[in-house]
Amino acid sequence: MSGKVTITEVAKMAGVSVSTVSNLLNGRSERMRPETKDRILAAIEDLGYKPNRAARQLKTGQTRIIGLIVPSVANPFYGMFARHVEKTALENGYQVFLCNSERKPERERSYAEELLGYGVKGIILGSSLTQFTHLEDLMEQGLNLVAFDRLAQAEDRHIIDSVGVDNKLAARLATKHLLAMGHRRIGFLSGSTATVSRMDRLAGYKFALQEAGVEPDPKLIWEGTPGTFGDANAIELGRFGAHELFSLADPATALFAINDMYALGAYQGARDLSLEIPDDVSIVGMDDIMLTEIAQPPLTTIKQPLQQIAELSTKRLIERIQNTYSGEQEHISLTPRLIVRGSTARRKHREPLATSR
Amino acid sequence: MSGKVTITEVAKMAGVSVSTVSNLLNGRSERMRPETKDRILAAIEDLGYKPNRAARQLKTGQTRIIGLIVPSVANPFYGMFARHVEKTALENGYQVFLCNSERKPERERSYAEELLGYGVKGIILGSSLTQFTHLEDLMEQGLNLVAFDRLAQAEDRHIIDSVGVDNKLAARLATKHLLAMGHRRIGFLSGSTATVSRMDRLAGYKFALQEAGVEPDPKLIWEGTPGTFGDANAIELGRFGAHELFSLADPATALFAINDMYALGAYQGARDLSLEIPDDVSIVGMDDIMLTEIAQPPLTTIKQPLQQIAELSTKRLIERIQNTYSGEQEHISLTPRLIVRGSTARRKHREPLATSR
Repeated sequence: MSGKVTITEVAKMAGVSVSTVSNLLNGRSERMRPETKDRILAAIEDLGYKPNRAARQLKTGQTRIIGLIVPSVANPFYGMFARHVEKTALENGYQVFLCNSERKPERERSYAEELLGYGVKGIILGSSLTQFTHLEDLMEQGLNLVAFDRLAQAEDRHIIDSVGVDNKLAARLATKHLLAMGHRRIGFLSGSTATVSRMDRLAGYKFALQEAGVEPDPKLIWEGTPGTFGDANAIELGRFGAHELFSLADPATALFAINDMYALGAYQGARDLSLEIPDDVSIVGMDDIMLTEIAQPPLTTIKQPLQQIAELSTKRLIERIQNTYSGEQEHISLTPRLIVRGSTARRKHREPLATSR
Repeated sequence: MSGKVTITEVAKMAGVSVSTVSNLLNGRSERMRPETKDRILAAIEDLGYKPNRAARQLKTGQTRIIGLIVPSVANPFYGMFARHVEKTALENGYQVFLCNSERKPERERSYAEELLGYGVKGIILGSSLTQFTHLEDLMEQGLNLVAFDRLAQAEDRHIIDSVGVDNKLAARLATKHLLAMGHRRIGFLSGSTATVSRMDRLAGYKFALQEAGVEPDPKLIWEGTPGTFGDANAIELGRFGAHELFSLADPATALFAINDMYALGAYQGARDLSLEIPDDVSIVGMDDIMLTEIAQPPLTTIKQPLQQIAELSTKRLIERIQNTYSGEQEHISLTPRLIVRGSTARRKHREPLATSR
């Protein structure tokens, strides 16, 4: 809350209009005479006017804001992630501006540029795009980036610390769980896999199958339309993709969904075909969002240590901004965990559906 | 994406370092000599360096950002709202910084202050708190506010346009639907009702009961703990509250939940007591988030015209920022709609549970 001193009193003491004071506070002082500026700053000081961000920044050149750019705020997973990031940020005296990129490089670029233009020196980026060239010149201007959900790539030309789960292991755990229950026709349900984390999950899925002597079948890998990541309509895509995978001539009896929203959509896809979960088909998700427990049946899923990822990302970003850490680029890979609930069971023999193709 | 001219070329032509150019672009030019500033600006002009936000703002004093402050990004309802706001904003050349307030006045204040400090001239506020005194001095400094989910109050001292559904009507529709199905013991399931929209919903619920000759029973109104709005843990609160309402000596046979997240929690509360939905108990939610259709059974709910609310709020805010609209404070109330799905049915006689109290 603001103190008792108002901007009007500052203006009165400095002998200027309120809008002149406001201009200075908001950084629009290019055409202001130095004497005017000095008088206003003196009045602020003398009256003890609570310095707001702008005034603070005039003094320190520092802003206490970090940016967080996520693929889609419509996915509760990113909403929870944002809450954890904000908690750690607030504990360290920073606030968070959240931006929604839909994984579009031009949107990421534009938000990052705005944030940097405002004096924000660091961004946590959750897009997982394969390259960051669209942000390179902003990094040259002093922007710090920590990538969430994407470990560093050989081509990276700047320091980008990253924090995330071992996505290959995540998919391998899910696939092995289904293999252990006797499933051999295991679907991979995803939107476009043109992200680092999704490519890793696909690799982990294939690896687990090959480990068990099962040759991956391209028909069982459902990736929707190229360029469509399905962040905002994961449920619809999951429903549609599951419908296809469960309707094949040699249908999937189980599937690993790229995230829980796709998995919840797959529940609907199974119901549309009158398939019971887990009696007829098994489904494994990933993320462990709060809705997985109340789904019917509760969803078996791969849990990401979301709070830990958020804390580590936020702390590292603030260390980079404050130059209290200047070591080499670091990649922190955390371990995912399988949580078995009610959506997976032993495979039963299943006839192809009448509607199969 | 940026043009071909780089900041390095600008620095070279102006005969200064890159960081000096960056300082000017980022508004840190207080200690810069006017001649230096002029040389840099001339180089930017001559080379056709793509003016980024900072440079644009130096010229126009305008920033193309609006703020959106919501109670909790963990509720997918606000995530969807944010997407709709962003769509309209982008169509009008604005980007959106999203902030998470947890309905705390000091958090709203702090974010609003940061945004204004950065030159953001308008915020859509979704907190629905009963008063806005904590933002008054910021409005005096030129901040425009449009309230979402809260119609104007008699005490408002500044122009705050508002856009939202008729919350009294929403609750009345839900309650009348349950009354028409023979229910008389109808619960009201909510977190703290100390928000304008929730007080209206409570009033609409009571009004519908009284209209039908049913005296509201305070035992059936569950509001959790004062001060706890339950935005981030609505599912847990809904589960707990439903458990209580369905366990009364004279139990609720139906309930209206303040939003769909509470309603999905109530599903779990009913299941914990082995109550079937809708055979034993009926549940109505509000919002119509995407998860209501895939719940089992699909949730009967009151739909808010979310996209329309987002569009109208965003357009009005931009009109206020650009001074293309300067009329009186306006309150746009939209009509909610009942969507009947599978979670409501005619009341059957129901014995109190063995565990009742």
